[in-house]
Amino acid sequence: MENIFVIGVGLIGGSFALDIKAQNSDGIIYGIDNNEDHLNEALDLKIIDKKADFEDLDKADLVIIAIPVDATLQVLPKVLDQVSDSAIVFDAGSTKEDICLKVKHHPKRRNFLAAHPIAGTEYSGPKAALHGLYKNKTNIICEVEETAFKLQEKALKLFSDLGMRIRYMNPKAHDKHIAYVSHLSHISSFMLGKTVIEKEKNERDIFDMAGSGFESTVRLAKSSPAMWTPIFEQNKTNVIETLDEYISNLQHFKQLMEKGDFEAVYNEMETTNHIKDILNGIQ
Amino acid sequence: MENIFVIGVGLIGGSFALDIKAQNSDGIIYGIDNNEDHLNEALDLKIIDKKADFEDLDKADLVIIAIPVDATLQVLPKVLDQVSDSAIVFDAGSTKEDICLKVKHHPKRRNFLAAHPIAGTEYSGPKAALHGLYKNKTNIICEVEETAFKLQEKALKLFSDLGMRIRYMNPKAHDKHIAYVSHLSHISSFMLGKTVIEKEKNERDIFDMAGSGFESTVRLAKSSPAMWTPIFEQNKTNVIETLDEYISNLQHFKQLMEKGDFEAVYNEMETTNHIKDILNGIQ
Repeated sequence: MENIFVIGVGLIGGSFALDIKAQNSDGIIYGIDNNEDHLNEALDLKIIDKKADFEDLDKADLVIIAIPVDATLQVLPKVLDQVSDSAIVFDAGSTKEDICLKVKHHPKRRNFLAAHPIAGTEYSGPKAALHGLYKNKTNIICEVEETAFKLQEKALKLFSDLGMRIRYMNPKAHDKHIAYVSHLSHISSFMLGKTVIEKEKNERDIFDMAGSGFESTVRLAKSSPAMWTPIFEQNKTNVIETLDEYISNLQHFKQLMEKGDFEAVYNEMETTNHIKDILNGIQ
Repeated sequence: MENIFVIGVGLIGGSFALDIKAQNSDGIIYGIDNNEDHLNEALDLKIIDKKADFEDLDKADLVIIAIPVDATLQVLPKVLDQVSDSAIVFDAGSTKEDICLKVKHHPKRRNFLAAHPIAGTEYSGPKAALHGLYKNKTNIICEVEETAFKLQEKALKLFSDLGMRIRYMNPKAHDKHIAYVSHLSHISSFMLGKTVIEKEKNERDIFDMAGSGFESTVRLAKSSPAMWTPIFEQNKTNVIETLDEYISNLQHFKQLMEKGDFEAVYNEMETTNHIKDILNGIQ
């Protein structure tokens, strides 16, 4: 592949660019971003080779769309309008149902692969891009049957070169599961941060007492609101369902404490300790 | 100091033993633990030099009590009964009010220093002990004025040798603040784990989709129920207060989503992003 376009040169797009460049030194990486500073930064950091515009997309072999999911809804149809029949376009959004629906009847639907690489950090922008971010990470692909076979193959070869494992899901199931294992974690972390900040007006106290526990639990509260707000909006129904269950579990725990039933409190924790085995699988 | 006794040879006590031994190669580390397997493990791992009993405590120069806080309430008075006038005894419990109250009128109160080193991992037992665990960590000391001056000095020298910074608080304030910055994090993490496990009966799905976000947020749900249950019991009032506020913040966030007020959702997250600056202070 010669002409690789990355739309959104932040953490996700930038990390793809770095690894693709490392694998494929002949390719030229073009960056498109509505933030001119980010584009210049990406150029300085050698994440991209050239700045580009939407008009240049007709020469693209590969287009990666790595922007907030609300912007993807606007940008993806325009990208498909522009690209040639042999180009493969994939996104990296954390929601899949609305995005797949948006291009369901697009004449170039078969040039698009709906993807969600489960990787990232709490940081954003080109400086947050990392070599090897996708190694050993899961990439969830939705509606694979809607993508042209040869283009599937091209994208899958790329993902496999980057060390990713592939899982196929339908967009509805993706959005439901990801609400639990990713979106809820972010809200629990943001609200933990909020609760502590509101209480601990004296930041020095948080600073000194936080230790390792609070720090990791609240890590995701550093995440970008511009990225996460449209995710919660697009996945509203599922996220509200997870919040209902989470809140009800917290209320139950609180009630056990109020009743002084610490045997049940112990059991709640012991049962959940089982998460160890599940997480061991992850590492 | 020659004779150092560690009661509870797990993560916290074991890590103290390792660092004290490294600093003070002449000292002999005696281990006391009601779990014989842990004692043998600690001996094999060279965390302790010898196994000991409560009757041996009369020769102690230093006693570290690093056991669950309910056990500390039972053990601490017995330890004080046993030690000589020149011995310093400190605990490492995550609650301070009940512990200080328990020995308030003990004739050897001045041999005790109430401490809470804010350090640890989600693991437990002798194998979890780490060299350098306490380096650059905060140690909160309560009611310092109740400890004999020379013994304070001895303990503070030790903490400073291990690289810890000291903060002084009264036990009531300690328990209130720590409920926010530590105890609540653990419950939020346990309940997150519970919510996801209940929903995702197919563990393979969690395993594949968890990525880095869920993993760090749920890390504390691996923690020991035997350690945490008595902490929640002793700090019940404060912990329930933090849970009330956390639940109410989650409910508010959910209501904003239900109303479709995503501008407010954005603002909630943006305000909490400020946690970045606070956590930067920690690193």
